[in-house]
Amino acid sequence: MRTLYHHWLYPGARLARLVLGEKGLEADLRVVTPWIRDDSFLALNPAGEVPVLVEEDGATLAGTLAVAEYLDEAYPDPPLLGADPVARAEVRRLVAWFDGRFGQEVTDPLAGQKLALRLLGNGTPDSRSLRAGRANIHMHLQYIAWLTEATRWLAGNRLTLADLIAGAHLSLVDYAGDVPWDEHPAAKEWYMLLKCRPCFRSLLADSEPGLRPVPHYADLDF
Amino acid sequence: MRTLYHHWLYPGARLARLVLGEKGLEADLRVVTPWIRDDSFLALNPAGEVPVLVEEDGATLAGTLAVAEYLDEAYPDPPLLGADPVARAEVRRLVAWFDGRFGQEVTDPLAGQKLALRLLGNGTPDSRSLRAGRANIHMHLQYIAWLTEATRWLAGNRLTLADLIAGAHLSLVDYAGDVPWDEHPAAKEWYMLLKCRPCFRSLLADSEPGLRPVPHYADLDF
Repeated sequence: MRTLYHHWLYPGARLARLVLGEKGLEADLRVVTPWIRDDSFLALNPAGEVPVLVEEDGATLAGTLAVAEYLDEAYPDPPLLGADPVARAEVRRLVAWFDGRFGQEVTDPLAGQKLALRLLGNGTPDSRSLRAGRANIHMHLQYIAWLTEATRWLAGNRLTLADLIAGAHLSLVDYAGDVPWDEHPAAKEWYMLLKCRPCFRSLLADSEPGLRPVPHYADLDF
Repeated sequence: MRTLYHHWLYPGARLARLVLGEKGLEADLRVVTPWIRDDSFLALNPAGEVPVLVEEDGATLAGTLAVAEYLDEAYPDPPLLGADPVARAEVRRLVAWFDGRFGQEVTDPLAGQKLALRLLGNGTPDSRSLRAGRANIHMHLQYIAWLTEATRWLAGNRLTLADLIAGAHLSLVDYAGDVPWDEHPAAKEWYMLLKCRPCFRSLLADSEPGLRPVPHYADLDF
């Protein structure tokens, strides 16, 4: 059995779980706490970050994109990048948008402040960060609405890594109760489709003791 | 003729120039200044960032990894990722290391403070950032030495995107005169090999008026 080293707070590790789910691949999930130094884990990934995937033959893959693209290459059914180089470039552009820009502008200031700080016992959330994240999220939800205006998914009519990484980030922000779904019905509709997929079940079961998600977090009809 | 929108200060755009060079592909290079809003450029890339590549048929690719991986897929000779999914995952792990971690720990605090701030007329460098960058770079140069102990390049005996993104970042830090080459002979040897490649010529010709590189920047024997 392959092993995925992960932590629910890390969007890249959430993406790895979603990709495994979409491909119907099983994995032994092991939780690591990347903020606590662990030499045996550093031997697997010198960056000390999740996700890390170890295949049954010992092959070790580390990092958000390295793991996701590896899984898509090694287990091509269903394909989660595009059909040709130009389509794949568009998926990768969107992946960079959501994992980079959305991460910095929304996930870090909201989930980072409300969840990570509390989990690490590292102080109270900074109100300026929260205000910034809550202002920034509107533009991103509008962008999701714009991208899905004529298509079912962010990069066309097939689900791709772009949807999954956006869902990995948004589900964390939603866990903290900071997504203004009611003001963004088109983005909500896209997220409902995503949330209903079997691959999402594992994420919706996340519930850290002492830091529970908002009540609608796991509701498919929210 | 294809067009590459770039700026010499952006590591991802430097990578695009290196990949084009390795593949022997010509491109019309157009300089954009991503820190000044330009609606015609935003239409090409809503993120407003370089690199953006526009092919002769109008296909538009945007973002560091999207452009680099597109070029490798569309023009596979020579290949710049590995031969199989596991090898490619290792290249992508290293690309994330250098574009992510090296970027944050070294390029941003050094080149960002010394070059970008001056170019934008945005104040004087912060001495704490400079100290942090100068302390951090040693670990990264040691990592390059460790990776190349038994192989010619960072991910094996073939040049890959890992070497090119590391070179894209290091050449910027070197432009500012902040690489302690004399203390890291093995990393220096790897960089000399890279610097001698024809693809590097375009980068070594970079010289911003009023913000010249250190004298050894373009020397192949430094």
